[in-house]
Formats: sequence, C-alpha cells, structure tokens
Amino acid sequence: MFLKNSWYVAGWSNEIQRSLTQRWIIGEPLVLYRTQAGKVVALTDRCPHRRAALSKGNLIGDTVQCGYHGVTLDCSGACVAIPGQQQIPPSMKVRTYPVVEKWQWIWVWMGDPEAADESLIPDFRYNSEPGWVSTGGCIDVKANYQLLTDNLLDLTHETYVHTRTIGTNEIVETPMTQRVEGNEVHVQRIIKNAPPPPLFSRVRKLEGNIDRWQVIRFQPPASVTIDARAYPAGTDDLERGLRWFSVNTITPVDARTSKYYWTITRCFAQDDAEVTKTIHDSIYTTFMEDVEVLEAQQIMIDTDDSMKAEVGVRADGGSVAARRIVEKLVKQQSTALAS
Amino acid sequence: MFLKNSWYVAGWSNEIQRSLTQRWIIGEPLVLYRTQAGKVVALTDRCPHRRAALSKGNLIGDTVQCGYHGVTLDCSGACVAIPGQQQIPPSMKVRTYPVVEKWQWIWVWMGDPEAADESLIPDFRYNSEPGWVSTGGCIDVKANYQLLTDNLLDLTHETYVHTRTIGTNEIVETPMTQRVEGNEVHVQRIIKNAPPPPLFSRVRKLEGNIDRWQVIRFQPPASVTIDARAYPAGTDDLERGLRWFSVNTITPVDARTSKYYWTITRCFAQDDAEVTKTIHDSIYTTFMEDVEVLEAQQIMIDTDDSMKAEVGVRADGGSVAARRIVEKLVKQQSTALAS
Amino acid sequence: MFLKNSWYVAGWSNEIQRSLTQRWIIGEPLVLYRTQAGKVVALTDRCPHRRAALSKGNLIGDTVQCGYHGVTLDCSGACVAIPGQQQIPPSMKVRTYPVVEKWQWIWVWMGDPEAADESLIPDFRYNSEPGWVSTGGCIDVKANYQLLTDNLLDLTHETYVHTRTIGTNEIVETPMTQRVEGNEVHVQRIIKNAPPPPLFSRVRKLEGNIDRWQVIRFQPPASVTIDARAYPAGTDDLERGLRWFSVNTITPVDARTSKYYWTITRCFAQDDAEVTKTIHDSIYTTFMEDVEVLEAQQIMIDTDDSMKAEVGVRADGGSVAARRIVEKLVKQQSTALAS
Repeated sequence: MFLKNSWYVAGWSNEIQRSLTQRWIIGEPLVLYRTQAGKVVALTDRCPHRRAALSKGNLIGDTVQCGYHGVTLDCSGACVAIPGQQQIPPSMKVRTYPVVEKWQWIWVWMGDPEAADESLIPDFRYNSEPGWVSTGGCIDVKANYQLLTDNLLDLTHETYVHTRTIGTNEIVETPMTQRVEGNEVHVQRIIKNAPPPPLFSRVRKLEGNIDRWQVIRFQPPASVTIDARAYPAGTDDLERGLRWFSVNTITPVDARTSKYYWTITRCFAQDDAEVTKTIHDSIYTTFMEDVEVLEAQQIMIDTDDSMKAEVGVRADGGSVAARRIVEKLVKQQSTALAS
Repeated sequence: MFLKNSWYVAGWSNEIQRSLTQRWIIGEPLVLYRTQAGKVVALTDRCPHRRAALSKGNLIGDTVQCGYHGVTLDCSGACVAIPGQQQIPPSMKVRTYPVVEKWQWIWVWMGDPEAADESLIPDFRYNSEPGWVSTGGCIDVKANYQLLTDNLLDLTHETYVHTRTIGTNEIVETPMTQRVEGNEVHVQRIIKNAPPPPLFSRVRKLEGNIDRWQVIRFQPPASVTIDARAYPAGTDDLERGLRWFSVNTITPVDARTSKYYWTITRCFAQDDAEVTKTIHDSIYTTFMEDVEVLEAQQIMIDTDDSMKAEVGVRADGGSVAARRIVEKLVKQQSTALAS
Repeated sequence: MFLKNSWYVAGWSNEIQRSLTQRWIIGEPLVLYRTQAGKVVALTDRCPHRRAALSKGNLIGDTVQCGYHGVTLDCSGACVAIPGQQQIPPSMKVRTYPVVEKWQWIWVWMGDPEAADESLIPDFRYNSEPGWVSTGGCIDVKANYQLLTDNLLDLTHETYVHTRTIGTNEIVETPMTQRVEGNEVHVQRIIKNAPPPPLFSRVRKLEGNIDRWQVIRFQPPASVTIDARAYPAGTDDLERGLRWFSVNTITPVDARTSKYYWTITRCFAQDDAEVTKTIHDSIYTTFMEDVEVLEAQQIMIDTDDSMKAEVGVRADGGSVAARRIVEKLVKQQSTALAS
C-alpha cells in the first residue's frame, strides 16, 4: 500500500503549461494544467459522467471541458457546465489535489487535502540555490519505487555497478554510520586518502588522493539527497575540491513502475557548460546501470515463490530504517482512515 | 455476461469464401467457411480431439479436416473421419452455429440453436436497398462493445469529438427525445435552421442553413441505425438535401475487445464515386476519433477502484435505456438456463 | 505441477563457458557457468541478500560475485564474502543444483539433490556415438511441454502437418503398436512398401518403394527418441537405405513456455556436409510447422471454459500412456514431500 498523505513529484515546473497533461501517481490518473494566472492544477483524470480521460479534452480558460460529451469542470473539480441542461448534480465533480511548485518540480499531495502540509516537501533547496547550477532528468523504471530508495541508501553498490564513473573499491572498505532522526534517515561514509573515481577526475582537476564524503539524507517516502564532497586528502579545502548534491525523488506510477526524478547540483565551474554536459551524460549512464540491475531484481522478486526471507548485511542499515519509517507512516494512515 | 441468444456479425458476406477463416465472438473461437453450394458454415474452432485450431486445417469438399491429426468434421459439426480407425466416438463433434447472410453481413447465432429466430436480425435493409449506395468497414476497438453503443446513442459527443466532420454546436443545444418500444430504443433530435456540418457541405451543395434530423434506432444487443437527414431550412425538400443511414453493429470479441462494423448508405449522388470516397474516408476518420476516446475511457474504467457510480446527464437517456434492455435480456437468458 | 526429481537440459555443452548464463527451468531461474577446472555449476539466480539476478554479476575464479552489492557465492552456493563485513550469516546462501554433462547437453537435476540419479538421464547415446553425425538446435515454443511430447508420440500428425518433408499418407494408414515398460513408453509403426517421403529422397538415393520404421521411445518427463529407418521395400538392406535417430527433449521454462532441444543423428553419408545442411534446414522447417500448430493449440486450451473433455482416438495410445507416467511420478513426488 502506498503512502497517500505525502507529496509526490508530478513533473518539472516547465513541463506543465497551458495544455492538459496526464500523469499517473500511486495508481491514480491525474490531469495537470496551468491556469491563466499561472497556478498549476491537478484533477482526477476521469470524467465523473462516463469516466472518459479528461486529459484528452480541452482547456478552456481555467476549466477542463471533457472531450467526449462536454462536461466542464473548474480548478476545484466542480462542474460548471453540462451541455444541454441547466441543472448540475452536486455529485458531478472530481477530486482536486493540492499542488505546490518548489525546487523546479511540481508536487502533488495524494492524500487528505486537510492534511496537506507544505513543510513535508523534501528539502531540495540546492535545486534552486543561488550560486548552484543543476542538471537532471527523469527516468522511467519498471520496478517498485522502494528498490530505488534502497539503492540510493546503500552506496556500496557503486563499487560493483558504477566502476566506470563513481565507483571505487574504497567505498565498500569504508564503514558507514547511520542514524534516524524523526522520520528521516541519515547515512554517512567518509573515505580517507583514496584515488578519486573516474567522473570526479573528468570534471575537476584533482591531483593525488582525495578525502570523499557521502552524506545521505532520506525523507519519506522516496526522496534521497546525497551531499557529495571531495577534498584533496588531508585538507578541508573545497576550493580545490568538488561538491555537489545528488537530489533524487521517486514517484510511484504503480506497484511495479516508477518515475525517477534526479538532479546533480554543483557549486563549482558553474559557468562551464562542458562540465554540465559531462556530469549530465555520465550520471544518466550511471543511473541507467542501476535501472538494468533494478528491473532484473524486480523480475526475480515477482517470480520468487520460495517464501524465503532476504538476508541482511550491515550496509542495509539505512535502507531498512527507511522502509520501517514508510511502513510506520502507512500504518498510521490506515489507522487514521479506520478511526 | 454476454447475451448469447442473439445474432452477431461474423464478417462481410464477401469475406467468407472457400477457405477457413477464424473469428472470435463473445469469447468463443469460430471457424467459418462456405460450402460448395454457397452456404456459410460456422463451427467451434477447436478440434474435439486435442483442441487444435480447426481454422489452421483444410477445407475438403464441405468438411473441415483438422490440420493436426486429420479428424474430419462436417457442416453439422459431426465427425466423419478419424485417420487410422473406423469407429467414431459419438462425442467426437463440435458445435455448429446457426448462420444467416443478410444485409451484406454474415450473422451467427451464439445461443441455443432452437431459439434462433431470423426475425431478430436487426433491420438493416438500407444496406441492400435498391436505389441506395453504401460504403463501410470494420474497425478493431480495444473497448467493451457497450461503450460503442453508448457512444452511438448520445450524439452530443459529435460536438466535442467530431468538429472536423459532423459535429456542430447546435447539436448539444437541441434537446433529444427518446422512447422505448419493446426491446428497441428510439432517440430523436431535430436541429432547426443551423449551419450544416463540414462533411455535409463537402458531399452536397447546401446553400444556407439546414434543418437536420438524427433519428436513432437501437436494437439489442449492439446495433444502432441513424437516419440522418438535412433539408434546406424550413423546407421538407430532400431533393435539395441529404439523407443517409448510418448503420452500425458491434461484435464483442471479448469483454475488452470489439469489432465495429459500419456502413453509410445514401440515396443521393449514387453514381458519384468521389462522394462515396469522401464519405468513406471522412466517416472512417470520424470513427477513429471515437476509438481514441473509447479506448482511453476503457483504461479509466479498468483502473478505477473508487467504487463511485457514474453521474448521469439528460443526454444519457437513450444509452441508459439500451443498457437496461440488454441487462433484462441477459437476465432472462440466465433464468431460462437455470429452469 | 512439474516433476522436480528429474533431469532437464539447460543448454548445449558448448554454450556454457567462463561467463554467467541465465536459464529458466520449471519456473526457476538458474545461473550457469563453468569452473576453471571445467565443471559446469548451476545456482539459483537470485542473490540471497536482495534478490538481484546473479547472472548480471561477475564470475571471479570459481565464485559468482553479485553485481549489485558484491555478495560472493561459491560453487556450493555458500557465501564466501560480504563487502564491508567479516561475519557471514549461515542463511546467506543459494541452492546449487546437481549438473551432469552428457550426450552434448548440460543436464540439471531440479529436485532433491539426494535423489539425483545419473542413470535417469535419457539414453541419448547416438548424439555422441562414434560413426554417427548429428545436427540440431533449440526452438522456443509458447506452449506447455506436454503438447510437444504428445506431438512426438503420435506421428500421424506428419501426414497433415509435414507433407513437404516427412509426411506421407501411408503413415496414418498403418497401425501403431505401443507398450509400456517401467516408466518408458515404446510406440512402433512399420510402413511396408510405400513411396519415400520427400526429405528421404533428398538426402538418400532411394529407388522405388521403401519399408519405413518409426520406433519411438519416451523417457519421462519429456524425452523422445525416434529410431527412423528406411529400407528398399522387402529387403533389410540398410546399406542402400537410411537410418537416423531423432533425439528430442523438452525443457519446461514455465507452464506455457518451453525450450525444445533436438538433434538428428545419422549413420550414412557422415562426411557429406550438404546432407547435414539439408537435414538441418528441413527438420527445422518441419519442427516450426509443429510450433505453429502447438502454439495455436495452447491458445485454444487457455481460452476453453467449456469443461468438455478431449475425445481420444486410437493413435493417442502413446501420448496418453506417457502423460499417465508423468502424472504418477508427480504424484509420488508430492507423497514423498508430504511424508
């Protein structure tokens, strides 16, 4: 079961304009559009009349006219016109979802609108921070969203999956620490005096070994920020090093399909388009390596009828803690609905 | 559940010749062929021996020889030969379906053969009427057949879906009347003194406004005839106007797949091949607009677990009445089977 | 339910080398590789840690390193390394399957390893016999494996499906005899004084009619050898005739998907590459004719809700006996598991 009382990314801010766009989130179809005043609206993409897809209709002013029989709904989801009749039944309406635009993305609250709390939007400030430059994308993945958050919370996989870009042997040799703070999980690994990974050398002149920081923050249900730093070994001199945030948030489309939104936001060589391109292309390639592993993993999970439990290792600490938090929040949600 | 005691179109008369053709109707596979004497035969397309598809076998005289082990069945579905043995078990047989060729189509009775009543074949006489010329086709649709009959019984959708051909604003502004007669539904809309829709002007010189008639007749489970007329406004002068029948019958392939058979049959410019081509191409395009809407609607229905009822509007009158008739007939069929 | 206590072909001997290969057998994923010493290993292709596909990882010496987080397993399925920790939980292991290489193929025992009995591998000696030359292949079939063994045990189908290569009318006109010996089924047909089938004439100069032998041996669950002979009619002179073994074994991938491994092994014109090519291409074409029939048959079985039993004919004797043996063995297996 998905966490409904939560914000999910429905797209990039610049994707939603003066037309109708369909998006699926936690199994529900939404139609998104921007009002004349510039506000993004998200409605259920199912006409209350005969369940046609509203996203195939027309945006007229700030209203959506169903493309089948012309039933017209406003931003609140209320019906404002039914062709051929004056009377409008009160049940002729769709759900409207709270929407917030923040950190380059459009966030939709999928649960009880009363409970929509903007402060629960993950802290992705570096996507929009002055002095920082970001590049990113969205990848369709045929896997459950939690396989993606698991992946991001245990970076030992970099050593095996990403040797061409960001993986090095020293990652697995360095212990991680993790702690839970409220509903957040923090995982940290500091690798001392090791050669830089290939991608670091490609975008930053790094002489000799580095100290490398991986400071990971999980915010439920599916957002992970990685504060990645590289200093010349033994110094704290970021001027001669590298720092970026890897910002990741996963939107479940359904139980086996996800949209993986990502950015890399850096505070060095901000004006160097070549560096931006190298980072973009390398990280895209890197994440596609993950996708290959995760989609194969999803098949192995789906076809497993052995009833055997997975066997834990020390490096799972972060992902296990994150799954427990989501589980707890889903349980609270069920209790709230039952009471 | 499908209505079994009913005729369904299995194909165009000229499609079934001296070879074996497979067709699926209400979830059942049929093999069709024409005998040497010219009669169309429909048998279950499953060999009683090992369930091979008979349609992959050979037509030998008026018998079907299974292409796997040579079991041979005659027009009645009885086995007339088993290679390598003289004795034929009485259970070695398949069902034969009553077949009638009428109005250019091949009709198959899917229920109790005793109950097959030729008078229940929809009245599509204009497909074959002297002085009338028809053009038509068959469209595969990934939607339940009732979404198609709903569509044909509420033409307000033309205003939203078909603005390029037959839709005008005046349609939705004009009230419909409907009445139920026995197991038929009749819906009528007469639009007075309005501009002609684009397609009418393309095939008929119409000066000024028209009076437009849409006289719809539903015959269960899935046939809809539309008597479409356009007179110069204020006259009853069909000589200077336009009249055609839109003849439509839907064959359910299974619960989510349909074959939509259609013709447009007209009594003007009968010899003008250009007019025939314009009508054919425009109506095909028009119906493909419906298909896009209906296939999206089917997805929205399949993925809806909200348990919310659809909300009715006045224009639904015809389609609601038609669904009630089919429901009643299906219920009668279940009662008959149980008694 | 599949017979687990049985050997199944996982591939050709030369397919499995010093890399990781995935294969699915009776619904279970396996990773196969060859050790440095040349022995083939088969492990469950699911990492016990997070169920990643081990076959996407690395072969390091004789161990498999998971490509996700580096968990490393040896040939016995035991874990020998977990990155970042010394302690290895005893449950961190996968199943290893008994493997035997024999008759050009790799055989995997899918059941209780204690019960693995090499003498149960079908007798396919002619695949490797001195003086015999074989050609063969593997065909993916979207049908249950028993539709394939049924097919091979009733060669009357050759008359209908394979008229271009090995089918003649005389096959169905000649009675078969069959007998069950232990868990094997033997079916025999001797056709006297009949014209040779087209393929025989293409690969062997045969003047006049032949006596044709089809001596079929079924070994459970899915292996069928056909000893095919053609003598000049009335002689027993194989010098002027033709003899080959058609060796067939089917590996169920899942309940509706199979891998059909086949060879034709002959003891004439052994050095004639042209004959090898003609036999290979003709038999491949012949078996693809079967595949078309069987995949259509599988669809007809899947869509049949009539609850009607199939109707038997005399020629079914062999396939019915074979299915009974498999059924009995599966039942014994269930009893053994329950006790």
